[in-house]
Amino acid sequence: MARDTAATYDPRTFKALTYYTAVPDFADGSDSPRAYLERCLEAVDEREGEVRAFAFLDADAARAAADESTKRWQAGKALSPIDGMPVGIKDLLETRDMPTQMNCKALEGNFPKRDNAAVWALREAGAIPFGKTVTAELGGSHPGPTTNPFDRTRTPGGSSSGSAAAVAARMMPAAIGSQVGGSIIRPAGFCGNFALKPTQGAINRGERIATSMSTHGPHAGSLEDMWQVAIEIAQRAGGDRGCPPLAGLQTPPQPLKPERLIVLETEGWQGLDDATRTAFDAVCRNMADHGITLLRRADHPLIEALERSISDAGRIAGSITAWENRWAQRNIVNEKGGGLSDRAMTTLQRAEAMKPRDYEALLLERGQAQLAHAAVRQLGDAMITLSCPGPAPQWTGDAPEECTAARPTGDAVFNYPSSMLFAPVVSVPLLGVSGLPVGVQIIGQQREDARITGLARWVWNNVEPATV
Amino acid sequence: MARDTAATYDPRTFKALTYYTAVPDFADGSDSPRAYLERCLEAVDEREGEVRAFAFLDADAARAAADESTKRWQAGKALSPIDGMPVGIKDLLETRDMPTQMNCKALEGNFPKRDNAAVWALREAGAIPFGKTVTAELGGSHPGPTTNPFDRTRTPGGSSSGSAAAVAARMMPAAIGSQVGGSIIRPAGFCGNFALKPTQGAINRGERIATSMSTHGPHAGSLEDMWQVAIEIAQRAGGDRGCPPLAGLQTPPQPLKPERLIVLETEGWQGLDDATRTAFDAVCRNMADHGITLLRRADHPLIEALERSISDAGRIAGSITAWENRWAQRNIVNEKGGGLSDRAMTTLQRAEAMKPRDYEALLLERGQAQLAHAAVRQLGDAMITLSCPGPAPQWTGDAPEECTAARPTGDAVFNYPSSMLFAPVVSVPLLGVSGLPVGVQIIGQQREDARITGLARWVWNNVEPATV
Repeated sequence: MARDTAATYDPRTFKALTYYTAVPDFADGSDSPRAYLERCLEAVDEREGEVRAFAFLDADAARAAADESTKRWQAGKALSPIDGMPVGIKDLLETRDMPTQMNCKALEGNFPKRDNAAVWALREAGAIPFGKTVTAELGGSHPGPTTNPFDRTRTPGGSSSGSAAAVAARMMPAAIGSQVGGSIIRPAGFCGNFALKPTQGAINRGERIATSMSTHGPHAGSLEDMWQVAIEIAQRAGGDRGCPPLAGLQTPPQPLKPERLIVLETEGWQGLDDATRTAFDAVCRNMADHGITLLRRADHPLIEALERSISDAGRIAGSITAWENRWAQRNIVNEKGGGLSDRAMTTLQRAEAMKPRDYEALLLERGQAQLAHAAVRQLGDAMITLSCPGPAPQWTGDAPEECTAARPTGDAVFNYPSSMLFAPVVSVPLLGVSGLPVGVQIIGQQREDARITGLARWVWNNVEPATV
Repeated sequence: MARDTAATYDPRTFKALTYYTAVPDFADGSDSPRAYLERCLEAVDEREGEVRAFAFLDADAARAAADESTKRWQAGKALSPIDGMPVGIKDLLETRDMPTQMNCKALEGNFPKRDNAAVWALREAGAIPFGKTVTAELGGSHPGPTTNPFDRTRTPGGSSSGSAAAVAARMMPAAIGSQVGGSIIRPAGFCGNFALKPTQGAINRGERIATSMSTHGPHAGSLEDMWQVAIEIAQRAGGDRGCPPLAGLQTPPQPLKPERLIVLETEGWQGLDDATRTAFDAVCRNMADHGITLLRRADHPLIEALERSISDAGRIAGSITAWENRWAQRNIVNEKGGGLSDRAMTTLQRAEAMKPRDYEALLLERGQAQLAHAAVRQLGDAMITLSCPGPAPQWTGDAPEECTAARPTGDAVFNYPSSMLFAPVVSVPLLGVSGLPVGVQIIGQQREDARITGLARWVWNNVEPATV
């Protein structure tokens, strides 16, 4: 990839913003949630004009919440380790004190006075819902104005665009994203964040339960903050109805060295650029140097079977989600007489051409893939692959009167499999390609969220990031 | 298919031997189990020289058992509705009073003094184990001497060759067969018998548990006797360990009209001869005339998905079974220094080239197919397809010094799917093609043995058999 930008991201030197490192200074007043927030607001002042991560921000409300938290810490009455943490909220999730407009023309001014379950849980834990972060329209592919903090000609990824960019721009230590196809992990990869897409159902989605593959999960500047945000939410709001909540301790899982990892190609491997391949291969070699056995599709017929079962994951996951969203989106269009982008309308029309039987057949394919995934359980501690297909693509807006870019927020080709498998994923910022971040994801079996977080911690502590 | 033989089988006129019709005359002595047996022995005398269904027959022992049964019926103390029924026992199953040689040179003279669970149960029900019927070697594909009762130049099918031929030749009203790939249903199709391949595990296999897809089930001249034999065994011997036994009443299920049937192609459809297609289509048309809706792969994506999942059933089922048999067969070869046919040795060597991981990958494919089968549950009352790929092929023995025919007992291509799906099957002799029988099978969901027997009764009572 030509170095056509001035981007200089290096995963070996980039200093992300963390909260758990500040907390020890809160008790004696040498630091405070209010002071922490002010530093975040300074970063917003400095970067937001270019990054455009926020759909809404009420700095005064955040300050008031930070002052309350400061008092609690000083009184030794912090509600949780994330008490006072500014946490961005993706503008798909309802917030009682901020509008929820979903980057959708039809929802301009939408302001339900309710908190999503995760938002409610964050407040209960003392955290500060720190603005609404830009989402691609309705969580789909039509982008908002947010740019990649490392190159403003590039997308931050989507649909959790603002959450990803705000964390990467050090405006906040963590933010809530959501994923149906690839909306947590792909932007984390493009922006160099850590992120958790939990096991399907492990974090209560509140009102956001229309689709069978969506999850809410944190972006963060550290694995410690990432886990803490996730577990504090799950401990208070639980899992989805019928699902056990995220399992794990109240503290971040200890680093766990993997013995064997399955390297997954997915359908994304074929179209991958050479530089990213080179960087990923370097990280794999470094893992092997640490004594980790890496298994690939040629090494075991069950891995080959899994690769085959997910080889069409994009079609399967995309069609399932399009179908599941069709009523809600058709209702919006009917009620408002339009107000959806051409991109969203195309997807809606595709879904409306489907029949229930087509959906059922897709569910079968998903079930068969999940069977294939469960079958590799004993072969490795987890699976690894790229979080995104190389660095974030350039995108500076649609040409007037036409929809040019098919995937303006990038391709979820590496993300559909874990969504379809209901599998937990942690993204780790291990690669720098042409001065831009590219993540590596660790994928577990269902309910292994804590385990893969521990594996990710060991990898982050021990494996040398690669730059090309 | 050219009418190159004098075969004159016609499903509309063929009179099979039945037992349930004789029973009402046993109480007053106008008929008796002994008299019934003598008529069977007459048929044996008349046909056995050509048909060669028996590997062993002790007529005097059978007569003694028939006399005991005669006394019980006359005393009103019959042990079951099949008390006194002569039932052939496939020579894979152990019998305490007859050798068990499995048509295998290495097992010549093998005579364990034990009864297989089904044999034990039959004796408990008063039935008469009526000789050992010829099996293909070890239940595989290397044939014994048995010929098709309707054309001695043709195979009766296998591996339950003798059971199929003996019932079709009216030597007995029922016989026990067993199936791993297609060994019950294919010979039933070739010989014009009714037969039940039960749900995997529904009938206790006794010592025959080495493979994961084998079942024991009856061939019979009527659906009534077929069901009665199966249920009397299951009520006494139960199912396999861990499996519930065959579910259903002690009397044959009542005829049940299907509303919708799924017509399954399987991988066998493509190579099928035109005459058999024509006959099968005629039966399908007649079903439609009765108001039954027939659904095919083009009618529903879940049926298409099932067809795709079983499109390679022969490789999957064949390889699974070869692997599962390898220890037992290698032990025989090692112990006896040979004694297996070239055909069996080829399969054994193929299995020994497999690795555990290959087997595991096959189990996954089988599991995925079972998921696809479960997914069509709501679409139809059952599935139908041919029991065998047209009429029995000619086979008059290997040429000296070479193994010519790849499948001397016919191709199980229509049978692998139900074996792999663990699904119950009833074969119904609905077709006559060039004067030879061809069966139609009704396939249910797991544990629906009684339901498909009821559907089969309705079909047999109402659908016009077709001849071409």
